[in-house]
Amino acid sequence: SVNPDLAIERQTASFSVEKLTAWLDGGAEQTRMRRAVVEAIECDPVFSRENQYFESQNERYEAAVRKAVHLQKKMQEMGWTVNGPEFKYIYRAVSGDIAFLLHRIFMRSISVLGSDKQVAKWIPLATQYQLIGSYAQTELGHGTYLQGLETTAVFDVTTQEFILNTPKISSMKWWPGDMGRSATHTLVFAQLYIHGKCYGVHPFIVQIRSLQDHSLCPGIIAGDIGPKMNFEHADNGYLMLQNVHVPRENMLNKFCEVQPDGTYVRRGSQKINYFTMTSVRISIIADEVIIPLMKACTIAIRYSVVRRQSKLKPGEQEAKILDYQTQQEKLLPQLAAAYAFHFIYNYLEELFDKGYREIQIKNFNTLPELHAFSSGFKAMITQYCTSAVEICLRACGGHGYSLLSGLPSLYTRILASCIYEGENTVLLLQTARFLIKCFMATSAGQPVPPSVAYLAAAKAGKCPAKNKLDFLSPDIYTEAYQHMAVRLISSTAAKLQDLIQSGVKKHDAWNQCTVQLAQAAKAHCYYITVKNFTETVEKLETKAGIQKIMKHLCDLFALHGIFSNAGVFLHDGYISGPQMDMVTASYLDLLDVIRKDAVPLVDAFDFTDKSLNSALGSYDGQVYQRLYEWAQKSPTNRQMSPAYEKYLKPLLHNTLSKL
Amino acid sequence: SVNPDLAIERQTASFSVEKLTAWLDGGAEQTRMRRAVVEAIECDPVFSRENQYFESQNERYEAAVRKAVHLQKKMQEMGWTVNGPEFKYIYRAVSGDIAFLLHRIFMRSISVLGSDKQVAKWIPLATQYQLIGSYAQTELGHGTYLQGLETTAVFDVTTQEFILNTPKISSMKWWPGDMGRSATHTLVFAQLYIHGKCYGVHPFIVQIRSLQDHSLCPGIIAGDIGPKMNFEHADNGYLMLQNVHVPRENMLNKFCEVQPDGTYVRRGSQKINYFTMTSVRISIIADEVIIPLMKACTIAIRYSVVRRQSKLKPGEQEAKILDYQTQQEKLLPQLAAAYAFHFIYNYLEELFDKGYREIQIKNFNTLPELHAFSSGFKAMITQYCTSAVEICLRACGGHGYSLLSGLPSLYTRILASCIYEGENTVLLLQTARFLIKCFMATSAGQPVPPSVAYLAAAKAGKCPAKNKLDFLSPDIYTEAYQHMAVRLISSTAAKLQDLIQSGVKKHDAWNQCTVQLAQAAKAHCYYITVKNFTETVEKLETKAGIQKIMKHLCDLFALHGIFSNAGVFLHDGYISGPQMDMVTASYLDLLDVIRKDAVPLVDAFDFTDKSLNSALGSYDGQVYQRLYEWAQKSPTNRQMSPAYEKYLKPLLHNTLSKL
Repeated sequence: SVNPDLAIERQTASFSVEKLTAWLDGGAEQTRMRRAVVEAIECDPVFSRENQYFESQNERYEAAVRKAVHLQKKMQEMGWTVNGPEFKYIYRAVSGDIAFLLHRIFMRSISVLGSDKQVAKWIPLATQYQLIGSYAQTELGHGTYLQGLETTAVFDVTTQEFILNTPKISSMKWWPGDMGRSATHTLVFAQLYIHGKCYGVHPFIVQIRSLQDHSLCPGIIAGDIGPKMNFEHADNGYLMLQNVHVPRENMLNKFCEVQPDGTYVRRGSQKINYFTMTSVRISIIADEVIIPLMKACTIAIRYSVVRRQSKLKPGEQEAKILDYQTQQEKLLPQLAAAYAFHFIYNYLEELFDKGYREIQIKNFNTLPELHAFSSGFKAMITQYCTSAVEICLRACGGHGYSLLSGLPSLYTRILASCIYEGENTVLLLQTARFLIKCFMATSAGQPVPPSVAYLAAAKAGKCPAKNKLDFLSPDIYTEAYQHMAVRLISSTAAKLQDLIQSGVKKHDAWNQCTVQLAQAAKAHCYYITVKNFTETVEKLETKAGIQKIMKHLCDLFALHGIFSNAGVFLHDGYISGPQMDMVTASYLDLLDVIRKDAVPLVDAFDFTDKSLNSALGSYDGQVYQRLYEWAQKSPTNRQMSPAYEKYLKPLLHNTLSKL
Repeated sequence: SVNPDLAIERQTASFSVEKLTAWLDGGAEQTRMRRAVVEAIECDPVFSRENQYFESQNERYEAAVRKAVHLQKKMQEMGWTVNGPEFKYIYRAVSGDIAFLLHRIFMRSISVLGSDKQVAKWIPLATQYQLIGSYAQTELGHGTYLQGLETTAVFDVTTQEFILNTPKISSMKWWPGDMGRSATHTLVFAQLYIHGKCYGVHPFIVQIRSLQDHSLCPGIIAGDIGPKMNFEHADNGYLMLQNVHVPRENMLNKFCEVQPDGTYVRRGSQKINYFTMTSVRISIIADEVIIPLMKACTIAIRYSVVRRQSKLKPGEQEAKILDYQTQQEKLLPQLAAAYAFHFIYNYLEELFDKGYREIQIKNFNTLPELHAFSSGFKAMITQYCTSAVEICLRACGGHGYSLLSGLPSLYTRILASCIYEGENTVLLLQTARFLIKCFMATSAGQPVPPSVAYLAAAKAGKCPAKNKLDFLSPDIYTEAYQHMAVRLISSTAAKLQDLIQSGVKKHDAWNQCTVQLAQAAKAHCYYITVKNFTETVEKLETKAGIQKIMKHLCDLFALHGIFSNAGVFLHDGYISGPQMDMVTASYLDLLDVIRKDAVPLVDAFDFTDKSLNSALGSYDGQVYQRLYEWAQKSPTNRQMSPAYEKYLKPLLHNTLSKL
């Protein structure tokens, strides 16, 4: 039975939860399909995550492999294919807790970077799991800066082989998933040398383990990199190469080839490759960032209407903690952000689909813009959502700190998204470089991509708001964001130019501006997110109350941003002190409005109890009962600890005997 | 041998590291003693933390008990006593990774709340470990709000016993340390009922496990609450009581007693008890918050001069990542904060010692101030330092995310400090209540404690700074902080009064101001921290270069705060936009200055490699070598996973056979 404190929250929804769910999914048919996939996975005990919080790294790894192998069968059984419409829901259904994800990257890389011959040879082998692939790029000493990779592949004309080495300890491959224990093959990125000349980083297919008995191949030293903050299920690995020979055909050669005599030939455009990396960055945002935030909001908000603590009014029952302004101020902006980022993700996906179509017809003009967008949004969204999940965790007090709440693992996992697929600061600076370039171009009257045309259109002026209700106007706050983004970009561009004109060398000047450049890049992404949210709301039909509540969330997201980053809006007086008081008043008023729909708004994310895997966040709100039941399943309760016989008993009994 | 990239950083220190260490310790003699204790503990293999990152919750618990039992012997052997000067260094030496910490709280509570007779009976038993105690306050359904506890203790006149019950699932005791598996006794906090009347929460000594065989006593259901985000070594427990009888003498009765006929007698002042709770809050700040931040800074900064990535100048060697402005801006403010909080801790310790002396002579006047300070600073420092440790972790990229870096466990542990010993938002609001009260008093011309006398002294005016160098004047920035704190407190007080005058009920008005009240309380603590830092620097002798570098850190801490919270300084125009640009310029300049001494500044914290337990942070900077060596020790590398025989082999071989 549903806890009455949670049930009552669902009776007063201002909109249809089912209709909102369908809209979020992109239509009722998508919702139906998603539910069918999730149901099929969850009813299969092999995919159970019931014991996840109690398992060791070894157990988690074994379970992930078991699930990955079973998934192949399941897909055949269900008629799902990798390219079918159901596939995107599978990852959601297993919560990413599965092996062979790098095997997919291995295959994708070969498809994109391999010649037709290479694709014809390797893809069927990989598809049928005659081998298990991995992707060995990162080294102990090098991550985001790929040019610095130290692994070498020297072409030997006499044997027609590449000889691969990791010459120093820092050049050892480190972190690749599926490589520590599972992979038989991996794609090694190495500096290509021919006749003593370096041609830069290229990818080589290298077999690392025997297909017969899984033993390491000659010249290979490999293993697991040990415990991490999360991803216990993944066998992130290390790999040393000592004079490992691979045939000439194993260098992926769609775009460049080493001919038998050692002639290096580059052909076609590598830009498509660049596009792939860029689009991977976007694709992780949905699965690894936005969904985890939605889960965290669901858990924290449901718990906050079940948890009662202290009294809001003397003489009354203890209050639900979500009725405290401070708790609302912690959680509701994160809920609004989850929606904001879901919409910006849709926007980015569309942008990339369009970009991809352009690239297909050999138009590469949009690439710089797409790269700047994928970098900046990856950095901004991962950072925002990581903080947001942490806020949700803390907002649940002690019980949030229990693994059984589900929140710690959501947090430790989303945190990694700030680091992988490009370090966030590096990415923000790439976006900043694009923005500065565009700003200079507009200043010189040159055309720029539409998404940054606003850099030219900015007016000086002041915010025209006269009272707190004015700040519920999307025009008012969107313009404030735009003004702020332009100001940060233009003032940093000016600083950069001043430094250079005063004689500071270009790279030094750049370094001296990087703190502000990163801030400017974030401001740009923030502005686009707010603008996109308002446009999404506008396009909504007014039916079913959805537009109304989305408008509230959009206002909340925007005003929360102004409230929390007041300095950048106040700095040049665009928003005045008294206007900031109006922002604050409207912002705090909104908390009360959205609080009423808080539970329906998280229900609309439509997570099953199994996918939340949280004692605090279940649909029925039976929090305390579930915490107690789950705790009893802990291995710490399975038997009396050996510590008793070894240490406690002698301690207690010896001292007894001393008396 | 020391990595040359790290060694060179130590050659140019602008001050004597050894002298700074001694000053931080409170004198060279303290340094000597601390090192002796740490050395004695670390050379004893029983206390080794070498395998910590590889152990399960069960193994960690067993190790913690082993260490706790061994520590008793060690102390006898070394002649250390619980009240001796060495004791405070023991916790540092074992990094808190030890059992029976709640046993100490159990003893302290009996000493403070028990009658002489009770002290005489229980303290010797506990001291000699004839029992193991715990402290059962928190329940599944109640944490910070103690009045809401649901456990009952009903006095039965006929048997002269209390009958204890946890009537609902939510009243189960939940979280107490040492209780899940170790404790034989615990101090249960329960609502006292006599003849049907409730007398509020009182502490009762309850035996929960047999002293002979450790089995649970009749009416007791107890166990471990399962996995948490950290503290795997601690057996946080649950406890249900079903008609458990304890004799009348087991209620701690220094301040109140139930007489044989059921008469309830209250005697003396309970205020001293209140003081104990308050001082516990302060004592955790050093061990559980500031030291972890110092460790995180040591690890991240040493790593950042060893890690080279990308090029700062074309054609040169790859740059140390600490030479990038963005990396400096991540780490150096956290380093400055570690120093700032070390000094504010000294200040608070002194304040509490003075307060304690007053209380001894029955002067309780300082209690409200002490309570406000302990609450506000606990909240502000734990929150700040938790973010700071997270920044250090992220600043180390992928390797920071490995448990072997030591950073994940520092983070997951410090995070708990935001939650335990009073939830931070609740604490900030208690401080705010005190500040509002004092502000009203000064407005009415009444006297207030010296620490808040500034509330009356605030002038309107504007910041007088004319150029960026003016912002390196402690008077300039301290006054800015003071002005800002007063403004936030006074404007929130005004909002509160306006609401009440407009007819809003007092408790509703309070709730509607809580977001701003919490902000005001933090502003107060921030101001006091900056002021105390400037005073600490002023008092320093100018010798050995220490004052100079401390002045830089103080400036950095203060300007970082203004830069990052620009809105509250710009809001009323106290600092103007152009002045904020000066702040930014001075702030960024300081990064370059302090960067030169960054390594000596963390060396001065004087952590041994064993206490850091970090592959990234060791004194010799052999980062990559150590990561590789430690990874090889992981249980994930001990043998081939059963997953191979069970899943991988059939997968690889079956598909081979299918061809």
